[in-house]
Formats: sequence, structure tokens, C-alpha cells
Amino acid sequence: MKNSLIVQKYGGSSVANIDRIKSVAERIARYRKKGHSLVVVISALGDTTDELLKLAHGITASPSERELDMLISTGEQVSVALLAMAMHKKGIDAISFTGAQVGIITDRSHTKARIIDVSADRIKKALKQGKVVIVAGFQGVNLDQEITTLGRGGSDMTAVALAATLKAGMCEIYTDVEGVYTADPKIVKDARKLSCISYEEMLELASLGAQVMQARSMEVAKKFSVPLHIRSSFSNKVGTIISKEVKAMEEVMVSGVAANKKEAKVTICDVPDRPGIAAKIFRDIADKNINVDMIIQNISRTGYTDVSFTMPVEELGRARQVMERIVKDVKAKGVIYNREIAKISIVGVGMRSHSGVAAKMFEALASKRINIDMISTSEIKISCVIDKKHVKDAVKVLHKAFKLGKK
Amino acid sequence: MKNSLIVQKYGGSSVANIDRIKSVAERIARYRKKGHSLVVVISALGDTTDELLKLAHGITASPSERELDMLISTGEQVSVALLAMAMHKKGIDAISFTGAQVGIITDRSHTKARIIDVSADRIKKALKQGKVVIVAGFQGVNLDQEITTLGRGGSDMTAVALAATLKAGMCEIYTDVEGVYTADPKIVKDARKLSCISYEEMLELASLGAQVMQARSMEVAKKFSVPLHIRSSFSNKVGTIISKEVKAMEEVMVSGVAANKKEAKVTICDVPDRPGIAAKIFRDIADKNINVDMIIQNISRTGYTDVSFTMPVEELGRARQVMERIVKDVKAKGVIYNREIAKISIVGVGMRSHSGVAAKMFEALASKRINIDMISTSEIKISCVIDKKHVKDAVKVLHKAFKLGKK
Repeated sequence: MKNSLIVQKYGGSSVANIDRIKSVAERIARYRKKGHSLVVVISALGDTTDELLKLAHGITASPSERELDMLISTGEQVSVALLAMAMHKKGIDAISFTGAQVGIITDRSHTKARIIDVSADRIKKALKQGKVVIVAGFQGVNLDQEITTLGRGGSDMTAVALAATLKAGMCEIYTDVEGVYTADPKIVKDARKLSCISYEEMLELASLGAQVMQARSMEVAKKFSVPLHIRSSFSNKVGTIISKEVKAMEEVMVSGVAANKKEAKVTICDVPDRPGIAAKIFRDIADKNINVDMIIQNISRTGYTDVSFTMPVEELGRARQVMERIVKDVKAKGVIYNREIAKISIVGVGMRSHSGVAAKMFEALASKRINIDMISTSEIKISCVIDKKHVKDAVKVLHKAFKLGKK
Repeated sequence: MKNSLIVQKYGGSSVANIDRIKSVAERIARYRKKGHSLVVVISALGDTTDELLKLAHGITASPSERELDMLISTGEQVSVALLAMAMHKKGIDAISFTGAQVGIITDRSHTKARIIDVSADRIKKALKQGKVVIVAGFQGVNLDQEITTLGRGGSDMTAVALAATLKAGMCEIYTDVEGVYTADPKIVKDARKLSCISYEEMLELASLGAQVMQARSMEVAKKFSVPLHIRSSFSNKVGTIISKEVKAMEEVMVSGVAANKKEAKVTICDVPDRPGIAAKIFRDIADKNINVDMIIQNISRTGYTDVSFTMPVEELGRARQVMERIVKDVKAKGVIYNREIAKISIVGVGMRSHSGVAAKMFEALASKRINIDMISTSEIKISCVIDKKHVKDAVKVLHKAFKLGKK
């Protein structure tokens, strides 16, 4: 990593005010002294984006997405300019750019655009001139020269995309936690910071609500083998490296336990058990852009079956309309919504080479009399839906059962 | 003006908050109903620009001008997006653009860039689609794709440049006064709003501190014969039309009286009276970018002369250094600074065809025992430097002498 190109990303809390910006500048200066080339991606200051959204909603309940992007993209433009000034103040040559200026080209959608190309010519030129390059995260430009934004976690996406394009030696994601833990340290006292984890595991953890990084950015990092370092902007401690799977990782059976309380369970009752019914149901749901997670269909003995699935609780309002129609269309008896669930999962590439992991998980939950409502498994993950009120106990007992705590 | 293209410009006070933005949207909607095509240029909300500058100065006392432009250009981007949303809310098709998006091309200087070209292709396309076009004032982009700003009064410049390029039927400048008056209504109670005035007169008034519009924008309007309408965004009253000189204007001897208290008088004492001395003095001053206004050199009988000039009081600090050097270089005796002056002026294209205007002015001032320190004249203007304490009396007596009050 000596003298290589490093992409750093600082989130909103890392640049919440003038003092924080100065301390980010301080850190960059230290890297600079070590001889690294640096591209820094930053988010808007603290809650700027929320404040801008409040202005928009003061005008209309349903602002146009194109104008929303025009509005909220200013947040990052402010922060890059300020950070560049803070670098200059330290005598370091730095230059700020908007997403459009560095050629973050996206598709034509707004408020959640996808990057389709990164030219980065201006970045390369500025790096050659010895400058620290500061790029506005979260934003891009489409082929009609319209300003776009990348949606939640968009600044991570900018950082990863730039790291991939520039073939950076490391992409450091600065956040307000010190890395990725074996479980939420707020729940499990002896939760341990992982020194490294594979993309696959982190992807499962991200989608399970570990909330360190969005799954979308992680997928891109994996695709282009961008090594990530999740670490805190409030300390100098080494965080967690996310990289390709290495042999050593397989020796650990389970890397972490994650809980997600932001899902709801939907059950369509007494669906006539005909071929193609499930396909119809989930096509209709997908057409409404509702993200379905786990799906369970009970075995039918009576010609009728119950179809259950989990989905983000925040999309429930939107889902209800579709569900009403589906119930009618497929001649089901009705639909039950349950918000009082939690999904608890264990993740680890070691599961591939270890057997009995699922049994051990179920036993651990049973030992605390925690009932399992739904189960879903992948190659490196086992998830169980349980009653929300048991979530802390479940995390603790699993963390202990798989010996994840500090040694 | 029926069904023609109108460019409207709203200043910061006209879009100071959500309610004001809504009332601007209301006005635009009314114009729209009459069948006009509309291009609307707006400034940043209220004191946004000052707040952004405060952030910058929280980081460094001398922020880079390039980064300052990056920073403060966000102010207008916020306001155009919000106004577009407010238009949509009223069911009117509208689209916002940054200066860069509509091709306001400037030179490479920052914080006070000059427009070198306007492409306006996107505006024409959007107008053809029947949209109200909302453009961020005060900003542009240079040929290196760097964001630039146009300096004080920059939004007026954007409006005038677009009106010229698009050959608009009218360029309406909305402000917090109802038009151009024969004198400052705060000083003269019966000051009258002028229904029309020539570019030349307005240019003199602008440079004399009438502060309705910057001289630079006025010059561009004059060059491209863009008719201007200065009016209030807080009422529906007709304001003042600024256009080419027409015959009727000449019938009025004097159009208005203006006072400027923002100048200081500098006198270099006992300068050896040699050819080329004045040239040397004012070349040195010009090289320091100090704007000299009136210049007076007394007739020399002794081989020594006094050279006096007026300049903006705010540039005095910067001027002192140059002056010290000049005094040494030209072997003068010393330099005297006087901040207690005011410049009082009468303006009117009618002066060209009327005689005795100067005499009448001097008599009026004498009648109030106001001493005249310096005099300068142009084809359509006479200015006198007087003691600052007499400025109100002087405006009143001149307003009365030239019968400028309400009939």
C-alpha cells in the first residue's frame, strides 16, 4: 500500500461541521506526507440533505425527481469546496470536483440513478499534477447533461466506482463505527471487530441490516475486486478489510451474527394451489418495485396453500394496494401483515466446509425458547424469522454458541 | 409585448423564503396565462450567499477563488430547483438549469468572471416544448468546465445576456423598489417614479450610486438594445422602462438627482508640474485595479500643483500603499485623504439641448450655502463634490430647482 493511490470516502457525520472538516483535512495531510496519491469522496455536511428536502416539501408534497436532484446535489458541492479550502489552508494542493466534472455518467433515472460509466480523465490529470482530488459523492450526470443522484449509500458507490476505474490500492470507507463486528456491540458486549471479511459475507451482512455499507456498492467492489477498508473517522485504529475470500477465512465457521428489525411478514392465506400462482403473485409485486426478501410456501394438502414472504416494513403502505388486488385475482381468502418480526442471521464462508451449522443455530435458539417462524439459507448464510421481542436474546445466544466473542 | 418572450430576473429578497418563492411562482403563472414565453433568472435565497461565505471563512481567511465559486454557486442552484417545484405545484411545466447547463460561457477568472458567449440551445429547446425556463443567475462555466461566478450584480448580467441572446421583447428586473426615481424617496418626499429613462441616463445613475442595477449589466443592455423594466416584486405596479433615447426624453432637462456617499477624495500635494506626471500617477493607480472617478488638477503657477481624485472609500486601504510610493516617486510633498465627502449629480439627456443647467445647479447649491469642492461634467451629467453633511439638503434643493417633484 506504500505510495499507492488510495480512495477515501467520508460520510456526512465525518464532515458534520467546520471542525470535523478540519480534522478530515488533518488526516488527509498525514496520508499525503506518507507519499500516497489521494482521491477523497465526501458526502454533504451532516443533515444538509434533510434540510434541503424540508425546503422542497415546504413547496410541494411531491417534488419532481429531476428538480430534487438539482436541489440535493448542492449539498456535496458545498462540502467538497470547503474541504478543498481546508486542504489549501494546510498548504496542500487540492482541487474539488462535482460528479459531472469528473465524468460520473449515470442512466437517465433520478434520485436513484445508476452509474453506467466513469471517465475520470480530470482526476487523472489532477493527480498527475500532484493534487489531492476531492470529489462530490452521491451525484453524477446523465447523457443529457442532467444532474442525477445515486440514492441511499450513493457516496459509497462513487468511492467504489472511482477506486475501480483508477485501480486504487485501497478504498477506505470512513464512518462512525470502527469496523465490522461479529455482532452489534450495542447488544453483545464482547462483540469482536473482524480484521478481515470476504465480499460475500459482507454482502450478506449488508443486506441483513448491518448498515455499514449498502449492498449495491459492495457488489461493485466485489465485481472489480476493489479492496475496502471500513474504519472510523474518529480514531486512527485499523478497521475491517473487505476483500476476496482467502483460505484463512474458511477456518472460521461463522463470521458474524446480524439482526434486521426493519422487515414485515406478509401471508396470503388459502391460495388455490395451481401451477403458476406463485409466479403471478411475485411478478405483480415485483412490478410495483417492492423488494421481497424471504419467501415460504407451505406444503399444500388440501388444494390450498399459504404463501408468506418478508419485505421492508417501510414499503408496506405501498404493498397493501397490490396485495388487495392479488388476493382477488388469485381467489385467496385474505392477507395477514405482521410487523412484529425480526430476521436473525449467521454468516460465514466457513459454512461451505463445515457441517451442522444450521442444527447448532436452531439448538441455540431453542435453548432460549425462541420460536422460529421462517427459515432461509444460502451457501454462506442461515436466516431465521423470529418474534421481534426475542431479537436481543437471539443475537446474544448465537454469538456465544459460535464462540464469536473476544478471546 | 403580447405573446412575446420575456426574461424576468428576481433578486435574493424576492426569493428570500418559501412564501416569497410561491408568490414569484404566482406572478409567473399570471404571465403564462397571458400567453408569454418566459425565461426566469433568479438569485440565491435571501442571505444564502453570505452564509456560505461565512462557512468558507470559518475554514480559512483567504479561500481560493476557484473553490469559492464552487461553493457559492450552489445558492442559485437551490433556488432554481425550488422555484421549478413551485411552478409544477401550480400545474405549469417548468425546468431549472444551472449556468453551465444553458451555456453561459465565461472567461477563466473566478468570483468576477465575464460572459464571453451564451449558447442557450437548451433554453430554446425547452421553450419550444412550452416550458417555463428557470436559470440560475450569477453563474457560468469556463472552457475548462470550471464553475465561475459573475461577481456583484451577476444575476442582472445573466438576465440581460439571455435577453440579448434570445432577442427577448422585454427584460424585467424585479427588485424591492418600484422603479427609478427622480431622487432617493427616503430623502425627497415628493420624488417621482420615472416611467422611462434612457440607457445613458441610467448608466450615469447606476455609477452614481442609484443602486438599482450595476453599470456593467446596463452597458450590455445598451449594447444589444435590450429593453429593461425595473419593477417591484412586491406589487403589480408598472415600474420604469429603460430603453434607447427617444425624442420625448429630450424635452425634460434633468431626469434625476443622485447622491453617492461611498467615495473618498485623495489629494497629492505639491506635485512638481512636469509633463507626464499625471500619466505616471494614474497608470500606477490603475495597475493596482483601483477605480478612480473624478480627477481635478489645479492650475499651477509655482511649478507645483495639487492633483485630486475621488475613489471608492472601500478601496482606500489598498490605495494607501500605492499612494505612499507615488508621493516618493514624483517627489510630491504629501497626500491628504478625505472621507467626509459626497458626490451629488444631476442627470438628463435633455442637457444636450438645454443650456444653463450647470449654472442653475450651482445657484441652487449656493442658495443653501453649500460649498462645491470639485466639479465634473459629461454630456448628460453634472457632478459636484460637497461636504458629506450637506448631502440631504443638496438633493432636496436640486430636486426642487429642476422641478422634478410630483405635479
